[in-house]
Amino acid sequence: MTIKRTFTRTKAAGYSHRPSTRTKARQLSVANEVFDDIHHSVAAANIVILATPVYTFEGLFTEISDSLPDGCIVTDVGSTKNLAHKWAAARLPSRVNYVGSHPIAGSEQRGVEYCRDDLFYGAACILTTTPKTNPQAVKTLENFWKKIGCVVKKMAPAQHDKVFANVSHVPHIVAASLVNANKDPDLQYAGKGFMDTSRIASGPASIWSDILLTNSKNTVKGIEKVIKQLENIKDAIASKDTNKIRKLLEMARAKRAALIEYKLRSEDIS
Amino acid sequence: MTIKRTFTRTKAAGYSHRPSTRTKARQLSVANEVFDDIHHSVAAANIVILATPVYTFEGLFTEISDSLPDGCIVTDVGSTKNLAHKWAAARLPSRVNYVGSHPIAGSEQRGVEYCRDDLFYGAACILTTTPKTNPQAVKTLENFWKKIGCVVKKMAPAQHDKVFANVSHVPHIVAASLVNANKDPDLQYAGKGFMDTSRIASGPASIWSDILLTNSKNTVKGIEKVIKQLENIKDAIASKDTNKIRKLLEMARAKRAALIEYKLRSEDIS
Repeated sequence: MTIKRTFTRTKAAGYSHRPSTRTKARQLSVANEVFDDIHHSVAAANIVILATPVYTFEGLFTEISDSLPDGCIVTDVGSTKNLAHKWAAARLPSRVNYVGSHPIAGSEQRGVEYCRDDLFYGAACILTTTPKTNPQAVKTLENFWKKIGCVVKKMAPAQHDKVFANVSHVPHIVAASLVNANKDPDLQYAGKGFMDTSRIASGPASIWSDILLTNSKNTVKGIEKVIKQLENIKDAIASKDTNKIRKLLEMARAKRAALIEYKLRSEDIS
Repeated sequence: MTIKRTFTRTKAAGYSHRPSTRTKARQLSVANEVFDDIHHSVAAANIVILATPVYTFEGLFTEISDSLPDGCIVTDVGSTKNLAHKWAAARLPSRVNYVGSHPIAGSEQRGVEYCRDDLFYGAACILTTTPKTNPQAVKTLENFWKKIGCVVKKMAPAQHDKVFANVSHVPHIVAASLVNANKDPDLQYAGKGFMDTSRIASGPASIWSDILLTNSKNTVKGIEKVIKQLENIKDAIASKDTNKIRKLLEMARAKRAALIEYKLRSEDIS
């Protein structure tokens, strides 16, 4: 929808393997044309954007490979990037250009009916590139994301996956673990604090299991770091070490205050 | 401020040991009168409400003990209740009636300047009582909280502290540990998910260390439950057990969905 509105002289083509999603996409008029055939949907594309679970990318790259026009840019909006680059190198023809994209936007809701025209405004979008990535394709894609309102940053896929394990994938696991550690009768007394801390645990399990499995090493390391911090504060509480408890809580408070300051300065409104 | 507005024929008296807070309270006109002397502030009270850190209660009970009028109700808005009841039994004269209160309202902000007139509207307020608590005092206090917009529930102090360790104190530790597990350069890429999951870590360290220290056993047990859940999902990711990962994430998603349903049904808007 944002693409259709922003690029008025460009045709926004859509495809989904689910007939019901295609029907809804047509009703909501999110694209200029919604195709019933994946090959037709990419046949005249300048930019192809996969917005499906990460594990579907390898198969989709293989499937659309022959139908992609020469010089076309292929990207995706998946939350992990190492495997996407590996699969693109193995499955896409050298006559097209793969660049990874990760717009830091979305919600715990799933489905075309939750599309929002302001979703990308002010959001960061990470482009992932390797030394082999075509610089002109990166430039074109960078302009594309900037025009729909994103602040574009570039990273190597390995760095991306490490950073986002820490700030996105591990927080999801933390939120889910917090919910699972609680029993239903207690949960009735959950207040706003609990609801916020656990919000992302409402995300779809299938998408998140893909994310965790395609970034398993970084995620496992990140969980270990959180467990270490939990043990740390647990020991301080068990031994009634007031100074240590205050120090740990104050460290977190100060770090988060600095983060909010940084976000305000950089006008990142998320 | 809410009290002053709601009970127009009642005098709302305020006191703080900080002169700067008293000045701000007068400027903001949050009470009908702000006293410079704690004894004067309680001398004509029907209800005395302590809104200070939990560890100050014992000293304050002792300090105001002789100045409290016969039959007056003493309560507090602290987040833990076992020690408050213990201290009240030991330090308050039998001619006054202690009942614990825990309104589930507030924010990570601290200070009289963050007072909000709608803070209590629709919020739950837990009253804690023991077999010795005066039933008439409970009734009066229940009406008080109801009139300012709270949904009142009653619990024994031990049950209260166990439940709120799980749904409030442990989430705070989880949020702080998540922030402390992250390094600053990574944090720049934190999105809305991270910000929500960590929001409560911005609460004041001194208040929270009091809460954790006055509820240490329940909190330690709660942290252990979260660590167990984290180990559980970590093992599933490390062994690439897709079914187990999905099962754990789906369990959290479904539990949180049921919780939202419950909150909507009970019109708890937090």
